[in-house]
Amino acid sequence: MADVRACVFDVFGTTVDWRTSVSRDLAAFAKQKGIGAGIDWVKFADEWRAKYQPSMEEVRSGRRPWTILDVLHKESLAGLLGRYGIAGLSEADIEHMNRVWHRLDPWPDVVPGLTRLKKKLIIAPCSNGNIALMVNLAKRAGLPWDCILGAETARAYKPTPETYLAACRQLGLPPAQVMMCAAHNRDLKAAKEQGMATAFIPRPTEHGPGQKTDLVADPACVDLPVGSFIELAERLGC
Amino acid sequence: MADVRACVFDVFGTTVDWRTSVSRDLAAFAKQKGIGAGIDWVKFADEWRAKYQPSMEEVRSGRRPWTILDVLHKESLAGLLGRYGIAGLSEADIEHMNRVWHRLDPWPDVVPGLTRLKKKLIIAPCSNGNIALMVNLAKRAGLPWDCILGAETARAYKPTPETYLAACRQLGLPPAQVMMCAAHNRDLKAAKEQGMATAFIPRPTEHGPGQKTDLVADPACVDLPVGSFIELAERLGC
Repeated sequence: MADVRACVFDVFGTTVDWRTSVSRDLAAFAKQKGIGAGIDWVKFADEWRAKYQPSMEEVRSGRRPWTILDVLHKESLAGLLGRYGIAGLSEADIEHMNRVWHRLDPWPDVVPGLTRLKKKLIIAPCSNGNIALMVNLAKRAGLPWDCILGAETARAYKPTPETYLAACRQLGLPPAQVMMCAAHNRDLKAAKEQGMATAFIPRPTEHGPGQKTDLVADPACVDLPVGSFIELAERLGC
Repeated sequence: MADVRACVFDVFGTTVDWRTSVSRDLAAFAKQKGIGAGIDWVKFADEWRAKYQPSMEEVRSGRRPWTILDVLHKESLAGLLGRYGIAGLSEADIEHMNRVWHRLDPWPDVVPGLTRLKKKLIIAPCSNGNIALMVNLAKRAGLPWDCILGAETARAYKPTPETYLAACRQLGLPPAQVMMCAAHNRDLKAAKEQGMATAFIPRPTEHGPGQKTDLVADPACVDLPVGSFIELAERLGC
């Protein structure tokens, strides 16, 4: 742990509360536009998110060439709008809805934790979100990243090994000196298999009050289980 | 100009004073190690830098696969150490010397100018330096980049069109909304050819007191000639 020189972070779920942010933003937009009366926007957000892994799997499997997440999100959104019978939106409206993923709010411990970590360590996202999404999200939320790493700089979606290895290589550091920090054991298992250090931060309401998954760290792949980004900073001596 | 949403910056020469930084750092290191008595380290820095374009040209021409600048710098350094008869250095010593490019000081207007620009615009380097070099340099110098763009994220060295186009694409912006900011007309000509906005900031002592090149902006490719990063912020309403 004393060797850790950089912390890289999962973003959707770990750093930001996508479910609350997406549903609240879309509900307000729908009200303003006078569309989608009666729609449960939390369910809409969950359904959109449910298309996330299958859409990336097309790219991971090689069936589809490299495609950034903004494009995958937009295709999934088009399908959902059709299924919900939401019609008559302009292209600008649909683009605005799609960019809700650029307007996600961080969990309350994130900005103070990152601010402390940044003084001593390199901090960066290692997310499946593309660079523009990560930059816009960070500027709005005040996330003080040193750089943006992840799927687009690796041209590979997590949990493909290359996503993790590219992040380490691009920082010029061996994987053991880079800590992958996430609320998802699957992400940390994949990072650990590439030799990275790992930290687990629980986000027990990422999927709502009835969440059953990722409530605790898997000791098989987690070096450092912590309660928050602030505790992570403390444990790393920041 | 009102449409500009992001400013991307050349780094070596425009943002940092590589010649003073490299020569001073190496002179101090040599003295500490008791090597290279009598060497003119400013000349050494100039000769190292003179290998910069030819080394990248091997990659640009396709004669060599994609290779990051840290590696090119190190090969050039090995040649120079041989030619100067500097022997007996450990691998760690040579690595430390090579990483002098991660320890360059900014010109005095840079941090205040970037800090103002960042409040309203996205700011990023668009340099031929690799990500680790840019991150380490920024952390040491306090450059508040929103992300790191440039040769490594594009896998192409400036002035190849793809380096500029990749930066715009990765920001999700059309080239006309991204301003390339540099002290070198050649860089700005290449950016302008791809449809970017351009700003020229003179660095008349980048190459020392007798500099003859890039003393003034070329009106054929420069939209906005300014005196400093601070004036750039002012002119962009930041």
